[in-house]
Amino acid sequence: MSANTAALTGSSISAGQDVTRTLARYVVQARWDDIPEAVRNEARRSLLNWMGCAVGGSRHETLDRALAALKPLSGPAQSTVIGRVDRLDMLHAALMNGISSHVFDFDDTHLKTIIHPAGPVASAILALAETRPVDGAAFLLAFILGVEVECRIGNAVYPAHYDIGWHITGTAGVFGAAAACGKLLGLDEQGMLWALGIAGTQSSGFREMFGTMCKSFHPGRAAQNGLTAALLAANGFTSSNRVLEAPRGFCNVMSTARDYAAITEGLGQSFEIALNTYKPFACGIVIHPTIDGCVQLREEHGLTGAEIERIDLRVDPLVLELTGKRTPQLGLEGKFSVYHSAAVAIIYGRAGEEEYSDAVVRDPRVTELRDRVQAVAEDGIREDEAYVTILLKDGRVITRHVEHAIGSLERPMSDTQLDDKFRGLAEPVLGRDRAEALIELCRRADTLTEMGVLARAAVPA
Amino acid sequence: MSANTAALTGSSISAGQDVTRTLARYVVQARWDDIPEAVRNEARRSLLNWMGCAVGGSRHETLDRALAALKPLSGPAQSTVIGRVDRLDMLHAALMNGISSHVFDFDDTHLKTIIHPAGPVASAILALAETRPVDGAAFLLAFILGVEVECRIGNAVYPAHYDIGWHITGTAGVFGAAAACGKLLGLDEQGMLWALGIAGTQSSGFREMFGTMCKSFHPGRAAQNGLTAALLAANGFTSSNRVLEAPRGFCNVMSTARDYAAITEGLGQSFEIALNTYKPFACGIVIHPTIDGCVQLREEHGLTGAEIERIDLRVDPLVLELTGKRTPQLGLEGKFSVYHSAAVAIIYGRAGEEEYSDAVVRDPRVTELRDRVQAVAEDGIREDEAYVTILLKDGRVITRHVEHAIGSLERPMSDTQLDDKFRGLAEPVLGRDRAEALIELCRRADTLTEMGVLARAAVPA
Repeated sequence: MSANTAALTGSSISAGQDVTRTLARYVVQARWDDIPEAVRNEARRSLLNWMGCAVGGSRHETLDRALAALKPLSGPAQSTVIGRVDRLDMLHAALMNGISSHVFDFDDTHLKTIIHPAGPVASAILALAETRPVDGAAFLLAFILGVEVECRIGNAVYPAHYDIGWHITGTAGVFGAAAACGKLLGLDEQGMLWALGIAGTQSSGFREMFGTMCKSFHPGRAAQNGLTAALLAANGFTSSNRVLEAPRGFCNVMSTARDYAAITEGLGQSFEIALNTYKPFACGIVIHPTIDGCVQLREEHGLTGAEIERIDLRVDPLVLELTGKRTPQLGLEGKFSVYHSAAVAIIYGRAGEEEYSDAVVRDPRVTELRDRVQAVAEDGIREDEAYVTILLKDGRVITRHVEHAIGSLERPMSDTQLDDKFRGLAEPVLGRDRAEALIELCRRADTLTEMGVLARAAVPA
Repeated sequence: MSANTAALTGSSISAGQDVTRTLARYVVQARWDDIPEAVRNEARRSLLNWMGCAVGGSRHETLDRALAALKPLSGPAQSTVIGRVDRLDMLHAALMNGISSHVFDFDDTHLKTIIHPAGPVASAILALAETRPVDGAAFLLAFILGVEVECRIGNAVYPAHYDIGWHITGTAGVFGAAAACGKLLGLDEQGMLWALGIAGTQSSGFREMFGTMCKSFHPGRAAQNGLTAALLAANGFTSSNRVLEAPRGFCNVMSTARDYAAITEGLGQSFEIALNTYKPFACGIVIHPTIDGCVQLREEHGLTGAEIERIDLRVDPLVLELTGKRTPQLGLEGKFSVYHSAAVAIIYGRAGEEEYSDAVVRDPRVTELRDRVQAVAEDGIREDEAYVTILLKDGRVITRHVEHAIGSLERPMSDTQLDDKFRGLAEPVLGRDRAEALIELCRRADTLTEMGVLARAAVPA
């Protein structure tokens, strides 16, 4: 043990000098005026997509059960639970909004790390922003910085950290939430260091939880715990100043490899939120190229499913690791089945929330086609790439090579597509008028003088 | 990644079949009548020691700052903050009591794992017990079971888990809190599985935080998060049924080695709480043999410190790893300095909370002697063992080999010594009469018809 510790100390201190301090200092000093317009625009798109997912997910039974358990323990009704009439103290609101924004697995993705960046950060700062005056520019700056922090930390430890079994949206997200809340609270460098420390020592969430209500609990808890960390730090609650690089800190304890330069280099010059992507389909991003290919072949050949003998997929190995459920029984499990996803893509031409309902997952028409889907993992195929080959009962073979799935960085969703996705999620909850008004507020968020307006617009009339 | 995952799956499933379920089933089925009297008695002693530490720690600035940040967000004033007039919702009360019970580093220790068992468990169930009728026997049974769960999980992964850098009182404690609260809530087997799952996916806390306010935050958060897990599970919030043994669950993600039999074998026959020990000194347990030896030599030779040329210690390597601070500046840092501890043992003949104040840590008389202390780590010396050699200025050499420190399993503190320790902690906060009454309540806790009585007795008049 001693030898091991000594080795860690020697290597990481030399490689990781002042990592946490460098990051904290940047967050404290960064200004809205320094943020390029393209970055601001992507932040607005990220906010819109997050809000749509949170509104759409707000009626999920995961949220019903969380509220049943915790609402009786809430403090002052100061912050909005998006999409619902409940108002809770800001910590519980942050938790609930983090859950609802991720419960459909429909939120944004930072492809380099598979982090869903907005959930932990936006859920925390919107809840906080209802308790004090926060203008739109300050809010969007905090949002951008929070995403920067969580994604840079993710970049430093991905994929080793994820491979161990950590749900990186939770584990890295808590840092992002703390940084963003700390920025809004005006923490100085020491305060920001403590906030990151208190956040990091709560970093948690196992990939084992995928397919259960705990998956969306992770970004919810990351938002709540990050906000807690910032509030504690603002009140002088002390922590380590080296939570990232210390021998027994985050990068060493929770990962087998680490690249500190990914955290500290180019701060203020590049922005991770500029790399954010949005899902056209309501499931894990790794299945998207498969769905995209199936939908394309369906459209071109007028497929219904009945004429198909077999569907052969060649995919990135991660697809089978994450979404290899052969015989899902519940809607939630369907999201972790590339087989089910290929089947609904052919039969319905889409893979929205409805295609992952219990009813559709058990529909004999779907299960019959699902059982005809074969998937083979192949090293060298990228995560946004897939090969789809369909053998028809008449003997014909049709194929599609998806080089970059729709929603990827190379084929981003347009503003119009994002607005349409938002409407599909928000209209059933808010009605058309309020959904349109909410789109408009998100699109000009940085011009708002008071961000509580946005939160209060995100509930039913 | 795929190969790695496959290997994990193969080995851990075969070795870890139904680990979580076996544990959950035991907790659900266990009855007070099955608990041997000796175990009940140790539970009462553990409760008393925990209560004394929580009362004594309740005025610490760590708690002041946590309350300043979080009290404004508290829900209904339903549960006691021990030692204070504040009343908070049960989740916040669990957090605060977990902090105060550990803030002096004076709480109980399960020596096989260095877990401080009572903090996470008792803090959670006492807060819960104020929200519904809970009698003393049910309470003490839940306490015993919670300690059983956290310590068995600790046994399964210690020392590998601890060596990585995890603060095991936090990481294992959250399971114990969830199990104990789940027992009081009457969860069935499925509910208990979910409670353990929701708890496990929040397991967190870095040893990097030692010496900061985050150290006592860990058992506090473990209590709060474990209680949250049980409340969520009681409301149908789902989780994995295999949080311990799954390839991406606790034992595989958070440890490099694991012994599942330590969790599942002999349930109901042996009780980990029977192995609980209590600290006579207000610092990490690994320094106790050194302090004990120094105090013994002081008493026998009438030492004052002035006559000492040099103190040479030979200790377990863990001592220098955990408590190797050469020049502490703050009281809290003094607890992580074997050098400071040896010096105060000689000068004051004790090492209570006062000897770890900022003033004493900076006292020239102490620092002068501290600088004369040398410590050498030696493999083969046990954690409760130490060799103390003192070279006097007149040339004489006196030595003491402490085979088992006072407070160890082999030399346990007597009931009288525990009561005296309690008085030292509680009287400054509660006054003599209330302190005596609280001792009496803890000593007959299992005969109480309503445990809220105990909580409400733990505050100043």
